[in-house]
Amino acid sequence: MSGHKGFTLWMTGLSGSGKSTITDVLIDEFEERGIPLEVLDGDVVRENLSKGLGFSKEDRDINIRRIAFVADLLSRNGVPVITAAISPYKAIRDEARQMHETTDATFVEVFVATSLEDCEERDTKGLYAKARSGEIKEFTGISDPYEEPENPEIRVETHDKSPEESAAQVLEYLEAQELIPAKG
Amino acid sequence: MSGHKGFTLWMTGLSGSGKSTITDVLIDEFEERGIPLEVLDGDVVRENLSKGLGFSKEDRDINIRRIAFVADLLSRNGVPVITAAISPYKAIRDEARQMHETTDATFVEVFVATSLEDCEERDTKGLYAKARSGEIKEFTGISDPYEEPENPEIRVETHDKSPEESAAQVLEYLEAQELIPAKG
Repeated sequence: MSGHKGFTLWMTGLSGSGKSTITDVLIDEFEERGIPLEVLDGDVVRENLSKGLGFSKEDRDINIRRIAFVADLLSRNGVPVITAAISPYKAIRDEARQMHETTDATFVEVFVATSLEDCEERDTKGLYAKARSGEIKEFTGISDPYEEPENPEIRVETHDKSPEESAAQVLEYLEAQELIPAKG
Repeated sequence: MSGHKGFTLWMTGLSGSGKSTITDVLIDEFEERGIPLEVLDGDVVRENLSKGLGFSKEDRDINIRRIAFVADLLSRNGVPVITAAISPYKAIRDEARQMHETTDATFVEVFVATSLEDCEERDTKGLYAKARSGEIKEFTGISDPYEEPENPEIRVETHDKSPEESAAQVLEYLEAQELIPAKG
């Protein structure tokens, strides 16, 4: 037994904010510590649970509800989970939180607070350029809203931090809450 | 610790065959023994994962793949799961089995082998009458095929058994495989 508890790390932030990069660091760290972890990122979920859904507000909401349903199932059974979908709408994130509260599961909202300017400047996948040119419709931050969390459990300022430093901030929180054992 | 392992009890059988009734007995028995259990029945899944899907072969297949994805996530993390969807097509059940094998999760196919005649005679929900009259289209066993499992781990003959006796057969298998501890 690794002494961990179940919880959902609900990462939210703009496209390119660093959710997946921080998640990758966390995956390695959990593996090194021998703590199980399931990752429900946007691609995994769209492939396995939400094929056919688009990016309208209604379809995004359905997608997020499905992620929340599965994350809750896992976390309430003692399994640590990271979700890494943009999840731009506050009402649906709050619904996910409420779902976890109802089942006594632990919900940890992690706001990856990279600014739109920084995300657009990096534009590692070239998506912002396509959104600006109109090639991609309904793109969060450009043609679709992103509603910032007001009281996330963790707010990660990535501007002057490496992904390792951002991940360390998350791990410190989890240790302080005794959701994972302190290292060493 | 209750000493259980993770596994997926994949119940399959006609509408009215007794999948849900046997599941209800198992839910009580697991609770009494202090073993956690998640139930992914057809209604739960259609509400939370598959809203909008119909009952065509394609939509049924998508629905079953989603159940398999979630059941596999849970069972490979040590959580016992029961799925109780009709799952009429052999190819998709085998795909679910394959998915579990890939992740080293335990897949136990339970064929609730109640005959069509018995199911139709009971017709507790009045669905067979509606299927015969054409009010319901695409009804398994009437206007849609049910492909029987050839080598299920457990074949439950309900004809002359109570739901408790059927559930006991499942529990004996789980104990023999050391997936749950022997009682008492």
